[in-house]
Amino acid sequence: MLRKTALLAAGALLAAGPALASGDGASDAEKAVEYREAVFTAMGHNFGPMVAMMKGEIAWDGDAFAKRAERVAALAGMPWEGFVEGTADIKGSEAKAAIWDNRTDFDKLSQQLQERTAALAEAAAGGAERGAVGKAFKRVGETCKSCHDDFKQDD
Amino acid sequence: MLRKTALLAAGALLAAGPALASGDGASDAEKAVEYREAVFTAMGHNFGPMVAMMKGEIAWDGDAFAKRAERVAALAGMPWEGFVEGTADIKGSEAKAAIWDNRTDFDKLSQQLQERTAALAEAAAGGAERGAVGKAFKRVGETCKSCHDDFKQDD
Repeated sequence: MLRKTALLAAGALLAAGPALASGDGASDAEKAVEYREAVFTAMGHNFGPMVAMMKGEIAWDGDAFAKRAERVAALAGMPWEGFVEGTADIKGSEAKAAIWDNRTDFDKLSQQLQERTAALAEAAAGGAERGAVGKAFKRVGETCKSCHDDFKQDD
Repeated sequence: MLRKTALLAAGALLAAGPALASGDGASDAEKAVEYREAVFTAMGHNFGPMVAMMKGEIAWDGDAFAKRAERVAALAGMPWEGFVEGTADIKGSEAKAAIWDNRTDFDKLSQQLQERTAALAEAAAGGAERGAVGKAFKRVGETCKSCHDDFKQDD
């Protein structure tokens, strides 16, 4: 009985979920692109204030930096399953075909991002000062840049 | 020197980031809506296979369930900062004005979601069987539904 209720509640949720906002007619490939871009959007939103703090554009807040670093690390593991074959040409995708031509390097960078964002979250944990996170922050930025240079259609 | 390089890398990242895909001209309110919807999209993508496993539509995989439960719990803390004043009427927003008319209840549900998804992730940790996560799963679904009923413009 509990289980049935759970499934009804879950069913109602799914039927109404923003995840399906792109329409029931969206293909699996379109959903994969929508998902990976959503994760990167969430990552960028949280990384932005970290950059601003590093630059001194906003006041340093070690607790806020730590919270956002933890979020970025959690998000860093999520987008990759959206890079399925057949999604290079989906409208709105910014993925280069190079991803599928050179999957080994792409996967290596995706792994590196997870390791480096985890290291940054660890360095930032508990509310560190800026000087204590600079090196780990730099390494994250380098990985982002390497991957964008090779695999993302940046404007 | 290290720091300068870090900022350059970070700057390159931000300039190119998918977070800015909606255009440099996007207002703060538009960015807030884009962000919160991105987080819910990511949450729905990860919750979907959990529902399918609960329903038996796909094979039970305790490790996969645990991984997705952990992601959902991490994401559950993220969208709320996107519900800033003045974002009820932004194009694409599915938020009801009731959020700002009744912020106390909305915040209570957002807190409840974080607590219940954390409990689900804990119950699922290590790869539990379906029976061990049913109750925690049901409670998450109920919170989703309560919030959608009151505060989301579902079609």
